[in-house]
Amino acid sequence: MHRRFDDELNALKEKLVRMGTTAQTMTHLAIRALVERDEKYCQDVFRHEETVNELNIVIDEAVLKLIALRQPVAGDLRFLVMSTKIGSELERIADQAVNICQNTHFLLQYPLLKPLIVTPLMADVVEGMVRDGLDSFVRRDAALARQVLETDDKVDAFKDQIFRELLTYMMSDPDTVHRALALILISRNLERIGDHATNIAEDVIYVVGGKDVRHHHEEKKRG
Amino acid sequence: MHRRFDDELNALKEKLVRMGTTAQTMTHLAIRALVERDEKYCQDVFRHEETVNELNIVIDEAVLKLIALRQPVAGDLRFLVMSTKIGSELERIADQAVNICQNTHFLLQYPLLKPLIVTPLMADVVEGMVRDGLDSFVRRDAALARQVLETDDKVDAFKDQIFRELLTYMMSDPDTVHRALALILISRNLERIGDHATNIAEDVIYVVGGKDVRHHHEEKKRG
Repeated sequence: MHRRFDDELNALKEKLVRMGTTAQTMTHLAIRALVERDEKYCQDVFRHEETVNELNIVIDEAVLKLIALRQPVAGDLRFLVMSTKIGSELERIADQAVNICQNTHFLLQYPLLKPLIVTPLMADVVEGMVRDGLDSFVRRDAALARQVLETDDKVDAFKDQIFRELLTYMMSDPDTVHRALALILISRNLERIGDHATNIAEDVIYVVGGKDVRHHHEEKKRG
Repeated sequence: MHRRFDDELNALKEKLVRMGTTAQTMTHLAIRALVERDEKYCQDVFRHEETVNELNIVIDEAVLKLIALRQPVAGDLRFLVMSTKIGSELERIADQAVNICQNTHFLLQYPLLKPLIVTPLMADVVEGMVRDGLDSFVRRDAALARQVLETDDKVDAFKDQIFRELLTYMMSDPDTVHRALALILISRNLERIGDHATNIAEDVIYVVGGKDVRHHHEEKKRG
């Protein structure tokens, strides 16, 4: 019976990893569509979104079933409840990739405003956060989760840099306003993906340590 | 023992309602600071945020304890797991109210760009969504939850209206760009509050009906 429960937990982890990898791939493809100015990558994003949505439901059902049947306590219970929260975060990362595609769809109808340098860098960083956040969950690695929290400062710096640069464009040439806005919104989509990865990392530290860091980080950010 | 479990569930509900009411009040105060051009209301927002963060932790702990001790199944288990998800949503609504205050802080340093008509209307609607979302959870009222999902279209319409109007300002006068951007970002903060209320409503329909509508709504929105 114990052996069987371990297998079930591993099967659940495997689903979360698949979901996370898919959400990360969606982010990558959405930014690729923007940078290469080719919407075909967004078709893949929409296709992957169905997988993510299905996995979200499957994971929630698996968690409820495992809690009801196995009646786990302490660490395992915490892990199971957090799995459903992490599933929700991954699903919202996928939503943001879809939103990037919607903003990209607008942008590709017009000439390129400026070469995109910082946006792909920012995307690389948030994709890394998603990957590390999920790795830290699977390996119960609180140190890696803390690294994800620290990376959030880098995301903020990218966001501010993009904002300032595009603001300059908008203020000097009204023709750039709409496109610059779409690029600012894409940077906010990426920021939100980073936020979701941060939420995952905070959950991991909670699961692993039984310690709640969730609001310490926010306070640090504000202060 | 059964009686006791009911009392415990009611105590948990009461905490969620307190958390939801606080998050809703924070949204209201943040918009009030913007409209009345008085930052003192944001001081209250920051104060309330601590309450919300504390309740989030308390609710998660209560849920884990109740599952471990009472080993609930079916509806009660679903209700408990969803309570932690709803706690996360409410905590993020509070975060958005804080973000509105940050954008308001910038705006209040400059003259009023334009009289704010649509933003407070949009805020009223999303506050109503938060209230109804939570009411539908407490009363297990799927019909009310469905109303919340439908209201989301109204939020989108407000968001588009605000965007179009401010775009006109930005394109005709570069001096308005930064302020208009801050107002657009506030409308996105409100949109996100509406999204969180929608997530709550979808969870309610799932808890009450055991039926997952979570991705049907998205597909409708996209289609």
